[in-house]
Amino acid sequence: MTTASPPVPANHSNASICRGCWDQMRVPIPIRGPLALPFRAFGITRSKMNPDICTICERSFQYVKKQRQISASATILFADIRGFTDLSERIEAVKLSEIVSLFHDRCAQAIWAHDGIVNKQMGDGLMAIFNFPIVRKDHATAAIMAAVDIQRSCTAALNSLNPDIGGLPGRALGVGIGIHTGDVQIGEFSSFRSDFTAIGGVVNLAARLESQAAAGEILVSAETATQDPDLTAGAEVRPLMLKGIEQQVQARVLVKS
Amino acid sequence: MTTASPPVPANHSNASICRGCWDQMRVPIPIRGPLALPFRAFGITRSKMNPDICTICERSFQYVKKQRQISASATILFADIRGFTDLSERIEAVKLSEIVSLFHDRCAQAIWAHDGIVNKQMGDGLMAIFNFPIVRKDHATAAIMAAVDIQRSCTAALNSLNPDIGGLPGRALGVGIGIHTGDVQIGEFSSFRSDFTAIGGVVNLAARLESQAAAGEILVSAETATQDPDLTAGAEVRPLMLKGIEQQVQARVLVKS
Repeated sequence: MTTASPPVPANHSNASICRGCWDQMRVPIPIRGPLALPFRAFGITRSKMNPDICTICERSFQYVKKQRQISASATILFADIRGFTDLSERIEAVKLSEIVSLFHDRCAQAIWAHDGIVNKQMGDGLMAIFNFPIVRKDHATAAIMAAVDIQRSCTAALNSLNPDIGGLPGRALGVGIGIHTGDVQIGEFSSFRSDFTAIGGVVNLAARLESQAAAGEILVSAETATQDPDLTAGAEVRPLMLKGIEQQVQARVLVKS
Repeated sequence: MTTASPPVPANHSNASICRGCWDQMRVPIPIRGPLALPFRAFGITRSKMNPDICTICERSFQYVKKQRQISASATILFADIRGFTDLSERIEAVKLSEIVSLFHDRCAQAIWAHDGIVNKQMGDGLMAIFNFPIVRKDHATAAIMAAVDIQRSCTAALNSLNPDIGGLPGRALGVGIGIHTGDVQIGEFSSFRSDFTAIGGVVNLAARLESQAAAGEILVSAETATQDPDLTAGAEVRPLMLKGIEQQVQARVLVKS
């Protein structure tokens, strides 16, 4: 399941050293237990992108990679709440914020369970990266499994909220997810922010796929599907014309079971 | 221009105390000069959302507001690079990252100059908030002026890059901007992230307006335009049907001069 080296426990949520610093530099940075205390005094703590990596990974990209940016193979996952714009016009603000909190928390748990990081959160949407800084050769599989977990846990949770939000017929809440795999640029792309992100055509295609996913759907690109033919076997193939992308994209549609 | 109280210099980029903590709590937190040093030792520094506010404002929303979230009047600005998806398929990665860096830096300068904060950055896009935590009664005006500055500085900078990116005819780079004003929910909407953001219908409408803005355009909602009839006088009115929004929106189109 993981590429963890000996000092790193297999259990993702209990790594005693930062898995990012280990995978990227082979440097053991304690993030749990008494050895972590002196590091904490210097502001080195667990990252909010993933509690198994530390703030060195998150904020000192250039130090970790010895370059301002790198090209790396990764799988990018975008998710957001379908019908949220419509919903935000109809329900009270406090209920709306409960829905957003619930979504972000469930997504993070699913992404962390498969060694991804929650790189960006924006309103009712998020972007996750798999294979950096925690290395996972099977990053496409990890992302698909995280997406399936997101659909499962968010659907259950959102459905339980449905009566509270007026039970409007035909307006059941759901999550749409897009996933794509390929080479991305990872680095710090603004002189005043110090956290890294990923940019490039692969990231944009993943975002476009997400925008086309209906509630409950996971749209997976052909490139991602090729990495794990078993998980995507028998899936509907949906040809899509996406904004800004010239060629038709053959998306695999996974639907929550 | 600002609602700054006596201890806060009018010059936005040289506030000696955090303007957010002052406006929200009337508490003076030194962020520049020798008085700022002991605070820095405790990890309280200038925020990356705006160098005139501090990390207390940014990360301790609940402490500052004594509530997990509040409803507040604000103006929301979304901006992104038009044609970026198309471009990201065509040019080399290093050049692409230069463009993104340039965009984020120019946008931040313009937003800070008008007391807004860069709340979220995601790839080639960003979201800014005006009127929180720095209070500006004329937040709609501030956002429009920031947008005009963004268009001016980004256009000049992106054009100077154009020869490097192949000078593809009809593919000039530009920025699209959407602005909307109204009540938003501000707070922390995920239990693992500690930075605040804004959510709600107003935020989503601003994002939808941005998605419809062509390169060089600023789409301003009627609600924002009403706040500053002078700045939007004579602007083209464009009726738009936006995804997830039932009623037609009458957007004012400001075009870079």
